[in-house]
Amino acid sequence: METVAEKAAKVKEASAALYTASREAKDALLLNVAKLLDAGRAKVLSENAKDMEGAKTSGLSEVMLDRLLLNDKRLDGMIAGLKDIISLPDPVGEVTETVKRPNGMTVERMRVPLGVIGIIYEARPNVTIDASALALKSGNALLLKGGSEAINSNRKLVEIMKQALNLSGFSENCVEFIDTADRAAVLEMVKQKAYLDVIIPRGGRNLIDFILENSSVPVITHGEGNCHVYVHEDADLKMAEEIVFNAKVQRPSVCNAAEKLLVSSKTAKVFLPVMAERLKAAGVSIKGDEETRMLVKDSAAATEEDWKKEYSCLMIAVKVVSGLDEAIKHINHYGSHHSDAIVTTSKAAGEKFLREVDSAAVFVNASTRFNDGFEFGLGAEMGISTQKLHARGPMGLKELTSLKFVVRGSGQVRK
Amino acid sequence: METVAEKAAKVKEASAALYTASREAKDALLLNVAKLLDAGRAKVLSENAKDMEGAKTSGLSEVMLDRLLLNDKRLDGMIAGLKDIISLPDPVGEVTETVKRPNGMTVERMRVPLGVIGIIYEARPNVTIDASALALKSGNALLLKGGSEAINSNRKLVEIMKQALNLSGFSENCVEFIDTADRAAVLEMVKQKAYLDVIIPRGGRNLIDFILENSSVPVITHGEGNCHVYVHEDADLKMAEEIVFNAKVQRPSVCNAAEKLLVSSKTAKVFLPVMAERLKAAGVSIKGDEETRMLVKDSAAATEEDWKKEYSCLMIAVKVVSGLDEAIKHINHYGSHHSDAIVTTSKAAGEKFLREVDSAAVFVNASTRFNDGFEFGLGAEMGISTQKLHARGPMGLKELTSLKFVVRGSGQVRK
Repeated sequence: METVAEKAAKVKEASAALYTASREAKDALLLNVAKLLDAGRAKVLSENAKDMEGAKTSGLSEVMLDRLLLNDKRLDGMIAGLKDIISLPDPVGEVTETVKRPNGMTVERMRVPLGVIGIIYEARPNVTIDASALALKSGNALLLKGGSEAINSNRKLVEIMKQALNLSGFSENCVEFIDTADRAAVLEMVKQKAYLDVIIPRGGRNLIDFILENSSVPVITHGEGNCHVYVHEDADLKMAEEIVFNAKVQRPSVCNAAEKLLVSSKTAKVFLPVMAERLKAAGVSIKGDEETRMLVKDSAAATEEDWKKEYSCLMIAVKVVSGLDEAIKHINHYGSHHSDAIVTTSKAAGEKFLREVDSAAVFVNASTRFNDGFEFGLGAEMGISTQKLHARGPMGLKELTSLKFVVRGSGQVRK
Repeated sequence: METVAEKAAKVKEASAALYTASREAKDALLLNVAKLLDAGRAKVLSENAKDMEGAKTSGLSEVMLDRLLLNDKRLDGMIAGLKDIISLPDPVGEVTETVKRPNGMTVERMRVPLGVIGIIYEARPNVTIDASALALKSGNALLLKGGSEAINSNRKLVEIMKQALNLSGFSENCVEFIDTADRAAVLEMVKQKAYLDVIIPRGGRNLIDFILENSSVPVITHGEGNCHVYVHEDADLKMAEEIVFNAKVQRPSVCNAAEKLLVSSKTAKVFLPVMAERLKAAGVSIKGDEETRMLVKDSAAATEEDWKKEYSCLMIAVKVVSGLDEAIKHINHYGSHHSDAIVTTSKAAGEKFLREVDSAAVFVNASTRFNDGFEFGLGAEMGISTQKLHARGPMGLKELTSLKFVVRGSGQVRK
C-alpha cells in the first residue's frame, strides 16, 4: 500500500494544474462532482448504511450517529452546496494592492492558491465533498483523512470526485484519501511539510490538540467557542432578552452559541429574573455567581472551571459585573476569543467593547450566532478559525489563498 | 528563577494595554527607546565587548563575530530604524472591508495586534531592538530569546527597553527576555500556546527546523532562498546581463541573491559566454549542466543536489532549458519559493511566468534582490517569510496584525 508520504507527493505534483486552472475549468469540475453525486445516490447511501451499521454495533453515541448519517436530504444539501460554490467568484488572480516604486517598478500583491491542503476530520462524511469543493474552487489540491467510522462512505465519495476530475481533464491525484483508520496515519500526515502547505483539522479538542502538538505543517485551528453576551447598564432590556435567548437557545450545540451571560450590576435586579424565567422555560439550566443566585432561584453555583467551559448544551453561567471594564476583562481572560457580544444603547460603550475584546468576531446589539461564513456574506465556509494567524473567524474561499508579490520592471537592479 | 511559562504569562497579561494603545503612546515609547539607547551607548558597547571576547575565546567564525559586533555606526542604525518606524502609520484599527448585510447588520474587518509575539534569534543583538520596535508599534508584546553568544548585549538592550516602557507608562513586562543560553528554554518556549500567538524564528536552517518540529504555537518561517533568474529567448541581453550580475554579485550572502541561472537554448550560445566572463571577473565560480559546460570553460558539473542548494556565496549553477515551460517547472520543483525572475521582452511570457511561478516574489525584468520590505515600500521589515500562510514575502507592520470581524447591529437575532 502507498505510504502517506507517497500520497502527499502525488497530490503535490498534481496541484500544479489546479494552481493555474481557469474559473471555467474549476466550475466545470464542481458541476461534474454534483452530477455524479446525484447519479450515484443509491451507491453512496448503501455504503453509508454499512458505516451506520458498523457504528451502531460498536455503540457510537446518538450525536455521532447523526453526524455519520447520509440520506437524500443531506445529499441534496451537498449538491446545493456545490452549486453555491460554482456561483461564487474565483478568488485566484485578484490583485489586492498595487504600488509604483520611485525606481519605476510596480509591485502588486496577487491572490494565488495555497497549493495542497490537508484536511483531517471525524465522523461527518459530507465534509469530504463540502471541504473539497471550497479547496478545489480556490485552486488547491487535497489530501483527506476522514474518521474511521465513515470509511465506506468516504471511499465512495472520493471515488466520485476522482471520476469528476478525470472527466474534467484534471489528474485524479488532485484529491487523495488516506484509506486507513490508523491514528499513526494522522501522525505521518502532519509531518509532510515538503508536500502540504496547510492542515485544517475539523473535529474535537483531542484531535486538534494532537495535531497542534505534532504538526510541522502550518495548522489552521477551529477551536471551541466559550462565547459571551454582556448586557450593559443602559441596554434596551427587551432587545437584550431576545439576543441572549437567541444566542443560547436557537442552536446550543454549535460553537457560536452563547455559554455565558454577563450583566451589569446596575441592571441585574430588573433584568435577570425575567431573563432567567424565559431561559428556564426553554429548558436551560442556569449556574451563577453569588449575586446571580440571589436573584435567580434554583441556580447552581458556577465554579472557576465553569467560566472557562464550552457547554454546547442548554446550560448557561451568569455573572453580575460592575460594568463594561470588568466585562471586557472577564471575556478576554476566560473566553475562547470566538464570538462575544454587548447589548447597549451607548455608542461609546459599544465601540469600546468592539475595540478591546480580542475575539474573532465581536458584536454590538446582535446575536453571537451570526459568526458564520454565510451570515457574514462570504458565500461559503470552511469552519471558523479561532487562531489569529492568516484567517480569523469564518474562512471562505479567500482564506484558502495566499498573496504573492508580483513585480514588473524594465531592467531595474539594486544599488 | 522564573520559568519560561511564568515569563510568557507575564507578557500575556501586560499585552492588554498595548492592544489598545494609541499611536501617540506607542511612538512616544519608541522615541524613549531611541533616547535611552543613545544615552546608554558606552554601557551597551562595553557589554557587547564582553560578548565579543567570549566569542573569540570560544572560536566563533568571522561571519558570526561580525553579526555579534555592535559599534557606534550600528547603534546609529538601530536609532535611525526606531525613528523610521515612528514615522510609519499605525496599522491597528484600520478597517479593510465593510459589508452591509440584508438584515441591516454591518460587518467589518478590523486590524488588531496579534497579541504576544515570541522571537527566537541567534547572534545578532540588533534584532533585540529592531524586531521589538516593529512588534511594539503594531501593538504586540514580546517574549525574546536571543543567542547565547549575545547574552550580555541583549540583557543591556532589554534593560533599556524596560526603562523606556516604564517611562512611557507601560508595564515593563511588555518585553521579557529569556535569560539563559539553554536550548531547553527554546523547547519550553515553543510550547506556550496559552500565552504566545506566534513565534518568529530568525536564524539558520537548524534552528528553524527544530522549532517547526516542536512548536505548538503557530510559526512564521523565514526560510532559505534558492533564487533563479531565467533568461528567455527574446530577452534584451544587455538587460539580462545586468540583472543576473546584480542578483548574484551585489550581496551574495543574503537570501534574495540569485543562486541559479536558467537560459533558453535559443539564446544560450550568444549569451552564456559573455555572461560567464563577467561573472568570473567578479570572482564567481560557475557550475553547469552539460550544455553550459560546452559553452563555459572551467565550469564544474552541477549535480542534482546543486539545483536545490542555497550557496550564499560567489557561486552559481547554470542550466540551459528548452524554454519558458521547462524554466517554470524547474523553478517550482527545485526552488525554495522565495524570489524568482524572468528577463523577457514578451508580455505574454512575462505574465505567464508571474502567474505560474509559485514564489513569495516573482519578477519580470528586475533583480531578485528587490524582495525586501523597504524596496517594496512597506517601510520596515521583520524578515522575509517563505511560508504561504498569513504572510508571504517581506513582513512589515501589517503582517504583525490580525483581522477580526466587527459587527454592528440593532437587535438582530438568527432565525
